[in-house]
Amino acid sequence: LIRILFSAGNGDWPEWEDPLRAALAHEGVAAELSAELPPGEADLLIWSPASAIRDLTSFPRLKAVFSLWAGVEKVPGLTTLTVPLARMVDPGMSAAMAEWVTGHVLRHHLGLDPVVRGLKGEWRGLPVPPPARSRQVGILGMGELGRAAGRMLSGIGFPVTGWARHGADSAFARIESGEAGLARVLGAAEILVLLLPLTGATRGLLDAARLQLCRRGQVIINAGRGGLIEEAALLAALDTGQIGHATLDVFAAEPLPPDHVFWRHPKITVSPHVAAATNPATAAPALVANLAGFLRGEGLKNRVDPDHGY
Amino acid sequence: LIRILFSAGNGDWPEWEDPLRAALAHEGVAAELSAELPPGEADLLIWSPASAIRDLTSFPRLKAVFSLWAGVEKVPGLTTLTVPLARMVDPGMSAAMAEWVTGHVLRHHLGLDPVVRGLKGEWRGLPVPPPARSRQVGILGMGELGRAAGRMLSGIGFPVTGWARHGADSAFARIESGEAGLARVLGAAEILVLLLPLTGATRGLLDAARLQLCRRGQVIINAGRGGLIEEAALLAALDTGQIGHATLDVFAAEPLPPDHVFWRHPKITVSPHVAAATNPATAAPALVANLAGFLRGEGLKNRVDPDHGY
Repeated sequence: LIRILFSAGNGDWPEWEDPLRAALAHEGVAAELSAELPPGEADLLIWSPASAIRDLTSFPRLKAVFSLWAGVEKVPGLTTLTVPLARMVDPGMSAAMAEWVTGHVLRHHLGLDPVVRGLKGEWRGLPVPPPARSRQVGILGMGELGRAAGRMLSGIGFPVTGWARHGADSAFARIESGEAGLARVLGAAEILVLLLPLTGATRGLLDAARLQLCRRGQVIINAGRGGLIEEAALLAALDTGQIGHATLDVFAAEPLPPDHVFWRHPKITVSPHVAAATNPATAAPALVANLAGFLRGEGLKNRVDPDHGY
Repeated sequence: LIRILFSAGNGDWPEWEDPLRAALAHEGVAAELSAELPPGEADLLIWSPASAIRDLTSFPRLKAVFSLWAGVEKVPGLTTLTVPLARMVDPGMSAAMAEWVTGHVLRHHLGLDPVVRGLKGEWRGLPVPPPARSRQVGILGMGELGRAAGRMLSGIGFPVTGWARHGADSAFARIESGEAGLARVLGAAEILVLLLPLTGATRGLLDAARLQLCRRGQVIINAGRGGLIEEAALLAALDTGQIGHATLDVFAAEPLPPDHVFWRHPKITVSPHVAAATNPATAAPALVANLAGFLRGEGLKNRVDPDHGY
């Protein structure tokens, strides 16, 4: 009998218990799943950074940790973790993210904002967008979420270039790597989508110098992590017109404070971290399938590499 | 030598002359193309309802008319026309329409309006949209434009049902026909897209009775013709919540008068007929290819059937 401790944020257990139990039964895992198991008895830990448990090294029997969050930058002691940690990869979240990104890319592509805000009686010609096939979209980060978004955007007709640590061109995107590749993606994209994890290598990636490499008037859509962009540098680049608009779903501090300048900036759209949420209905089966494979000795999928931080 | 008279709106000739001449050369058609040819000498007429020529029956040599507009409801004497008339089918317009429709469907699907208008410091949970695959989209009218939109929406994951005069299911859409089929599409769709031509059979199609057949809270996106919906009935259905929102790109009278109630209605988005315009760069080659085939005796494509009015 495998003992699994669930420890996440307040209110998470009622949401997750049934889908996790159903998935364990479906996978044929004989397990005791509980949110009240003594830490010393836990073989496996299903956990999120919202948990009260902050030290993952103190479980004598622990074999692996399964994160409920896709982003692991808030995992304490990540670099000293002695058991493997699996990131959440939720197919439902990938689909939701692709829809959200595509919706905002089309919103900017089509110039919908004045229409949504209301033209108030003014019948006028609006700028005619070029065809999607001549509008370059760049995606920084081509993991599960970046690939899902790129596939959908390419399907609509946008030429997509991705930037990744490594990787080959795919049917739907050209892939660039390294600093020179980043400069090419930034310089070519009319619309730039950020879907990178936050790591030592990506924190502050879009700083003043790199924002100067962006195509003039570029629209930035950040659905990754707030820390990817230096706030002061972004504000300066919006002021000069170097960046045309920023649609931000993530922020260095969340919730974004009510008096933060982003809220009322005419060139910033604030989306309150709603792009894509983990959905227990699709995430629990994915997590438990990974857990069951691990117990069968097939190795852990979506395993976090502490050196890379994701 | 074929003599072609061009007669459309003010300012159309400079936009169309070069693309038409280039397309005629490309197709190898030996033609005299002019905007000043005496009507009595014209073998073919490239024309739009914005032309000063209102009587298409008075050209002794005329073999065919090629409309620059996709919609032909404003063609005078359509039912008594003795020469064949070809509608404009512009692949560039179809792509642009698909992008516009998909952008607005995603806007409603994702609930983007409060974010675009600005939450003004209020960090709050917004309704989480269901996955696109469980959001039914209905399309009334499955011609070139309806099919292009349906293909793109289906590619994103939306289940698409179309309503057409006739037609079989395709890879991307189930097709319904007739009054019973219309009731099924209206009743199932959470988002309804109108891309019908305006004809005797479709004028006022969405009247009070049919709006009552719609799924409660349905979002209507009209990119066809204003006359497809009875204005007073729409306003009443919005008031009761039977219809949740209407995004309208077309109107019974255009430009929409500045004091029209639609402009400031909280449940109506007015888009000033910008969904998709005919683009001479893609439309001229398509028109001339049809013209060249007609001259070779291959028959006329996109020929308007006066009995059906499109």
